[in-house]
Formats: sequence, C-alpha cells, structure tokens
Amino acid sequence: MKKTIKPELGSGFRDYLPEDMIPRQKMLDTIRVVFERYGFAPLDTPGIEREEILTGGDENFKKQIFKVGHQRGEEKFALRFDLTVPLARVVAANGSKFIKPFRRYQSGKVWRGERPQAGRYREFLQFDADIVGTDSLLADAEVISLIYTTLKELGFNKFTVRVNNRKILNALPAIAGFKESLLADISRILDKLDKISWSGVSKELVDKLKINDDQVNFIKDFVELSTKNISTEQILEDLEKLMSEKSASNDGVHELKQLTSYLKSYGIPDSNWRIDTSIARGLGYYTGIVFETVLDDLPDIGSVFSGGRYNELVSSFGIQQVSAVGASIGVDRLFAAMDSLGMIKRDVSTPTKALIVTIDGSSEKYALEILATLRQANIASEMYIGKETQMGGKIAYALKKRIPAIVILGENEQKALTAKIKILKSQEQISVSCEQLVSLIKRHI
Amino acid sequence: MKKTIKPELGSGFRDYLPEDMIPRQKMLDTIRVVFERYGFAPLDTPGIEREEILTGGDENFKKQIFKVGHQRGEEKFALRFDLTVPLARVVAANGSKFIKPFRRYQSGKVWRGERPQAGRYREFLQFDADIVGTDSLLADAEVISLIYTTLKELGFNKFTVRVNNRKILNALPAIAGFKESLLADISRILDKLDKISWSGVSKELVDKLKINDDQVNFIKDFVELSTKNISTEQILEDLEKLMSEKSASNDGVHELKQLTSYLKSYGIPDSNWRIDTSIARGLGYYTGIVFETVLDDLPDIGSVFSGGRYNELVSSFGIQQVSAVGASIGVDRLFAAMDSLGMIKRDVSTPTKALIVTIDGSSEKYALEILATLRQANIASEMYIGKETQMGGKIAYALKKRIPAIVILGENEQKALTAKIKILKSQEQISVSCEQLVSLIKRHI
Repeated sequence: MKKTIKPELGSGFRDYLPEDMIPRQKMLDTIRVVFERYGFAPLDTPGIEREEILTGGDENFKKQIFKVGHQRGEEKFALRFDLTVPLARVVAANGSKFIKPFRRYQSGKVWRGERPQAGRYREFLQFDADIVGTDSLLADAEVISLIYTTLKELGFNKFTVRVNNRKILNALPAIAGFKESLLADISRILDKLDKISWSGVSKELVDKLKINDDQVNFIKDFVELSTKNISTEQILEDLEKLMSEKSASNDGVHELKQLTSYLKSYGIPDSNWRIDTSIARGLGYYTGIVFETVLDDLPDIGSVFSGGRYNELVSSFGIQQVSAVGASIGVDRLFAAMDSLGMIKRDVSTPTKALIVTIDGSSEKYALEILATLRQANIASEMYIGKETQMGGKIAYALKKRIPAIVILGENEQKALTAKIKILKSQEQISVSCEQLVSLIKRHI
Repeated sequence: MKKTIKPELGSGFRDYLPEDMIPRQKMLDTIRVVFERYGFAPLDTPGIEREEILTGGDENFKKQIFKVGHQRGEEKFALRFDLTVPLARVVAANGSKFIKPFRRYQSGKVWRGERPQAGRYREFLQFDADIVGTDSLLADAEVISLIYTTLKELGFNKFTVRVNNRKILNALPAIAGFKESLLADISRILDKLDKISWSGVSKELVDKLKINDDQVNFIKDFVELSTKNISTEQILEDLEKLMSEKSASNDGVHELKQLTSYLKSYGIPDSNWRIDTSIARGLGYYTGIVFETVLDDLPDIGSVFSGGRYNELVSSFGIQQVSAVGASIGVDRLFAAMDSLGMIKRDVSTPTKALIVTIDGSSEKYALEILATLRQANIASEMYIGKETQMGGKIAYALKKRIPAIVILGENEQKALTAKIKILKSQEQISVSCEQLVSLIKRHI
C-alpha cells in the first residue's frame, strides 16, 4: 500500500457509528422479537443472486440493479434489490420442504443501482415478513396487524396503514376505457400523488399518457374517493357504486370489506389504518391487497412499512401457483424517522458499564482477576489499556464514554482484596471488598 | 415475467433455511453477548466500498474481489472481502470522534470473487472484534481472551489458539540470508503447512522460490520448533536462541513472552493456546502478534477465529499511525463445525409455541382475541390459516412443525370463554378457562 488513498465512502453509502448503532440494534431487536412472537421463522439468502432471478428478463429492471463483476463465461450476477424476489426463488426451489402456510422473516441489506441523490441511499437494510401458501385474507390482516404491533412496540402512536387492492386498480382500464397497457404507467404516476399532488398527476396523465379528460376525471374521482373525511363503511359503499360494472373490481371491493372486518377483530384502531384508493405500489408483482404506512407527523418521508399480496411471483419460476403476502420495513428510513421525532437516545458510544483502571503496573494481575469477575457476572467491562499514564487521563476516558462505574485498583487494594469504585452519576467514591463489588456495580448501572 | 426462470442460486452461494437459521441466530446472539460483555461497541459499514479502498491499488487483490457494475464515469466500486479494511477506513475518516482505545465489533457479509470450488463459498458472514489505538500487549491478550470466552460459551472445550509474531517472521530473511522480497511468498507457502505438510512446503520453497538447502533447513528448524512437545517456556527459550542475532526478532520473542504472562493472568488454560512458529497469516497488513484457532477434533477445516495486530493499515489512508489488533470469526465455517460435532439442534423450523385452530368459521373472532392474549403474554403464536379445512389436517400442520401446544376453539369454547389445549409432548388434552390459558401454555413450552 504505497499510494495514499482517501478514506472516503462511495456516494450513496454510509456508515453507522456506535452511537447510532447502539439504538439501531435495539430497534432491530424489538422488530425481531415482535416478528418471532407472530410465528415468523428466520431465513437468510445471499446478497448476490443470478441476474435473471432478479430481473425476470425485464430490461427496465437491469438499469436499477448493481451488476456484480465476474470472469468471462461465468454466470451473470447482481445484488438483490429486495428480499421478496429471493424469497420467491427459495420457495420455488424448496417448495416441498416448507409446510404451508410458511411464515418467514429476513433482515438483510439490499442495493439499488440508481444514480445517487441527496438523501437517497443505494444500500439499505430491510426487515421483511411474509406468509406463503395461503389465499386467506386472514394472512393479509395478520401482516397488517404485524405492522401495527411492531410500530407500537417501537414507540409510535400516530401512524396510518393505507390499504388498497390491486384488483380494483386492475379493473380501471375496462371501466374508464383506457388501454390496459397504460396501467403500469398510471400506477407509477399515482405513486407520486403525495409528492406532486393531483395537479401534477393529472398533468402527467395527459401529457405523457395522452388519456382524455373523461378518463382523467374518472381516475380523479377514484383516487379522491378515500380522501374525503368519511367512514370506512362509506368509502366501501362509494367504491362499490363507482366500480359496480366489473366483477373483478367487485372482488376487490369485497376483499376490502372482509379485510375491514378482520382488522376490527384484530383490534386495530380506526385511527391507525384506512382504505386509500390512491395507493398503487409501483412494483409489478402485486396482485391483491396492497398497503403502505405513513407516519402522521412525518408524511413527507414516504412509507416506512409497505407490502401486499403477490400470488404470481413464485410461479414465475416455473412451478404451480403459490399465494403469498408480506411486508417490508425500510429500516434506515424508519430509524431516521425515529431520530427526527426524538425517539432515539444517543447517550452512549459503548456497552461498557465498568472501567477498571490501575494505579500502578504491579496491580495489573489483580485487575485482570477483577475484570474476569465482573464479566462472569454479566457486567460489560473493560480495563483501561490506552496511552494515558496518569489517573486523570484514564478517568477522562470513562467520563467521555459515559461509563457509569470506574473501578480503581492499586497495590493497597490488591493487598486488602478491595476496590475503590467511582460512580459517575452520584460522583460518590466507595471502597468495597471483592465480594461486594458485583452487587454494588449492578445497583448503579 | 414471461420467460420461465430456474430458481437456482449462483454457484458458491447458499441459503440458510429456518431449521438452520434458528440455531445459527442463537449462535450469533451468543457471540454478540460475549463481545458486548468485553466492551466492544457495534459498527456498521456498507458492503460496497470504493475499489481502491479495498485493493490499496494492489493488482493482485483485484482478482479476488467482486467488482460492482456502474455507469460509465462513475466511481469504481467493489464488495468488501473483510471487515478490517472498512474499519481502518472508518477510523481514518472519523479519527477524532473515537476516544481511543476504540473497541468495535461488526458482523456482516463479505465476498471473495474466487472461482467457486467444492465446499468453498464466495459470500460468508464474519463477526469481528478490534481494539484500535493502543500498542499495549494487553489488547492482544484481550482479543485472545475474547476468542477463548466466545468459544467456551458456544460450547467448545477442545480448541487451540495458535499464536505467533510477524516480527519474528519478518526477521527471517536477514537471519537465514534470503531476499526480503521473498517473505510474502514464503508466508503464503507456510500457510499451507497443515494441508501439504513439510515435504510439500519444502518442495514449493525450492521449486518456486529457488532458495537453497541451508535456508530451507533454517526455515524447517524455525517452523518445527513449536511442534515439539515442550512447554511454552522452552519454546520461548529455543526461539530466543535461534533468533538471537537480530534485535527485531528479539522484540518479537520478547512480546511473545509478555503475552504469555498476560494469557496466564487471564486464566486461559495451557491446553487452549500455544505458540506456533508456523502461523504466518497470509494477509499483508499484519505487523505483530498473529493468531489462528483450530478445533482439536476438526483440524482439517482450518482456522475458525483468526486475527492479529495491524499497526500500519489505518495510516495507509494518509493519517498518522494508529495501532490496532483484532480477530474475526468465520461464522459459516464455525457453524458447519458445530454441526459436524453434533452441537447444533435442528429440532424446530418455527418459533411458534402455540397454534390456534378453529373448529368452525363462527369462532374466528374469538380465536383472534385468544391469539392477541397469547402474544401479549410473549408466547409466540399463530392461527392456522392454511388450506386444510378438516381438524386432522390442521393438527398435522402443528405436528409437522413440532409446535408444542395446540389451542382448539369452537362455538362451545366461545360461549363458555374456554379453550381446549393439546400438549404435543404429553399428548394430553385439557379444557381451561381463558384466564388459565397463558399459565398453562407457559408451563408446557
């Protein structure tokens, strides 16, 4: 390593230093506990997949993925952009091993090969839960209940799960009289509603897709149906009227009705969910119920926990149809949201609860014994082994890291089998015997 | 997704299904608990780094990394091959933020762009701990103590940490009279000693490096010094004799002496560590103490927990010298080892402890209430929502997944606010009130 290399990250990437990672891991632990309490089992898949698994041969996708370099003649690899497609591959490959319904959770990094933009990252952590192998709407309700419980346990109260059904969206072309091939583009434009509002959306519908005024108005009536301040029951009734002509859309409305009843049985408060006909979910694989979750106090950050039903994805790998529904947390976005809402405590940069400092070299052996004792008692501890030689410098290390207890040992302590303890909070200094040490520290951390 | 795509993994990659992931996560939890008890703080860095960060401009490295595709004119990216180089980058970039000594742990995937071989993977999980910013040999001892405690807590008893010092290796050219430029190649060949034994090593030394018989014999004496069945003290004495001429190597021997004394103070039994002059550690960045850990019952799988001191790596990013020492667990290799030693229980494929089944649709609402009650009591539970409509099929689901308790609910139970519970182990069936439900299930899981 002769040349000096700047210690820079690539643009669109970031580090999590300990003061962030400590609360972030606490958050991840909470999510995992809830997911397991709901009976989801862990799964792990590689970050690298065969390119065609990820793209399904779709050229559009190829622009958004990071390809992974390899020798000529080798398989083509790329980095996964979500955890849903890899799950579908696993289910297709191991179908008979999984007793259905199969509930799995997975946390892992995903990558998007987009051009870097301010505030958008190209690598982020997702935490997913999916139920595979059931058509029951109880599974859709279960996933929405999981979203509700997870966010509550993380400390959120004001959030709204916005629910729609792709079957209703899919019926729009026939009802409004535009070409079915336009639906994907219309969905993508509708996804921007929160950002560019209706005037922006209608302009794009007309300019880009050349659909006529009647059709634009129908779409407006449709997406605005749920923005009125009316009850879920009223929304369902209005939807039924608007969609009455087509059985496919009626199926969709009927599913929303059934789901509504389940969500009530689950005890999810009306204030934490609603039907929102503007939710489209850009990804192509959804086939039924879809949902996004917005934080009421931070609507601009977008959805933090989204998903839906995708009954055709697994069968795209050449096996018989396997129904599935799931949801995904954007961990980094949710963490940033918790941070801006003041829910993240960044008060420590170390797990250490007790720092051992020696007054002189001769007590080193004794210090290592005390260190072993503390660790055996499950007290996270370390001995000061840095460059400071004076007591003041050693203690400054503990203060800067806000380590709650300092154990000071010297020749006298070694002889008497005692220790001096300094408690950070109370500023007390106490002399105790070895036997009392553990219980005293446990009382102060 | 028109074309049918085979649901295949790339070669050199693998999935972890739930029956593996459940014990694997338990293993990861144990490692994390021990690392935090030693005062190491979590850090996270991206999988993708700028290529030159990883290679340091070294062309040899470029063959072993996975490059990550990008648009023309963009930065060159690659996937990290370890967690040490990213740590060095973080320390170089955030130096002043970290109060030294800085103890960090990190778990994350790393990738090696080698050609796939039987039993060798190209993506694997590492779990690293490092202490940055101290020259004290107590830090080296601390890391070796961490290895010892981690393996003990994972359930291993028979393992050996093999310790050497690169300073001694680095003195070999001057003592034995060969060119210093050969040292890297000699180290790489010595790394194969376990696999190809001395006859293979000596052949490669002569054929590939053209070093003479005297030099080969000196190297043989050196590496075999520690294979004799003698005490650590005797090894140190013999080393001192062999190396006497050069002060650099004497430094190395002196460090090993000091380390020996610390390891004794740490209470690490002689049976779990020894000085091994054949340990070289291929990676170029090591500068002092180096170590590998072999499992006595599975010597052929190689080292499961390795590391050493690298005092120059951080300064390769253009800042002043920052000393560091650390170690890395090859999680996948260690898990495979635990598996072949019968230490992995693969008895469940779900965290679910209680499965709720309904006799008829009318009790669904009641079932969802019971489900909520169980989950509130931290009992991992789910309701059967699959395709089976008969009781036998529903119960078969619980039996196949070895869910320990089945809660059966029908119209009668709903009316009486009771539940029927079937305990898998004892095959008992008990009728209880709602109030007794939680405590009864907790007794049986």
